[in-house]
Amino acid sequence: MNISHIEHIGIAVESIETAIPFYENMLGLKCYAVEEVKDQKVKTAFFMVGQTKIELLESTDPEGPIGKFIEKKGQGIHHIAYAVDNVDESLEELGEKGVRLIDQKGRKGAEGLNIGFLHPKTTLGVLTEICSK
Amino acid sequence: MNISHIEHIGIAVESIETAIPFYENMLGLKCYAVEEVKDQKVKTAFFMVGQTKIELLESTDPEGPIGKFIEKKGQGIHHIAYAVDNVDESLEELGEKGVRLIDQKGRKGAEGLNIGFLHPKTTLGVLTEICSK
Repeated sequence: MNISHIEHIGIAVESIETAIPFYENMLGLKCYAVEEVKDQKVKTAFFMVGQTKIELLESTDPEGPIGKFIEKKGQGIHHIAYAVDNVDESLEELGEKGVRLIDQKGRKGAEGLNIGFLHPKTTLGVLTEICSK
Repeated sequence: MNISHIEHIGIAVESIETAIPFYENMLGLKCYAVEEVKDQKVKTAFFMVGQTKIELLESTDPEGPIGKFIEKKGQGIHHIAYAVDNVDESLEELGEKGVRLIDQKGRKGAEGLNIGFLHPKTTLGVLTEICSK
């Protein structure tokens, strides 16, 4: 598996409407896209920081993954996503190496990327995503 | 304040001796430095991923910040560090804008960087570091 860079960092927020002005006015970053990902029950907002995106995640359903995360842990960093050449091949390789997979195969994520999640149980507590174009 | 890229992502681990093989063998990253930061009561291990470093943090003292974090939340992502031009000027600017500062002035961090932390209370739950060379 070849990781080229950190594609994005996912951050769970209660409201992207409140969070966007913080990232823009305090940190001086610029939101370039807002997108709803119905499958994941989230509304997302993206900021480019060098090679890496900050992806803010607001839950659209208390029963969705971000809704549950915020209920349990509050707002904060949710996951790291690494850019790889091929998500399906990487998931297969990681599964063979004993990493517990949330996704056995890649599926469509925000910005049209092919994505797959690894379970934090076998990634030292870090919810880890891999993605490719 | 001008953020150029994400300098590093800090990840709290119980043992860097256990964590380094995971990052090397599973994710295919290469640890290029291990350093103790006595002031922070941590042992750190660094991996370069594109522009950004993964900084693993093992506590050397249960009363230190990482020891307390792991006791409370378990292993996982601890903070995001943004690269800025000048930490002292950025801390002053952020303080004036109402961000609660953990460090009023820059101090020396790992790899000889000048660093300062912002309190997660006013950064939407994200422990945020800024750093410069």
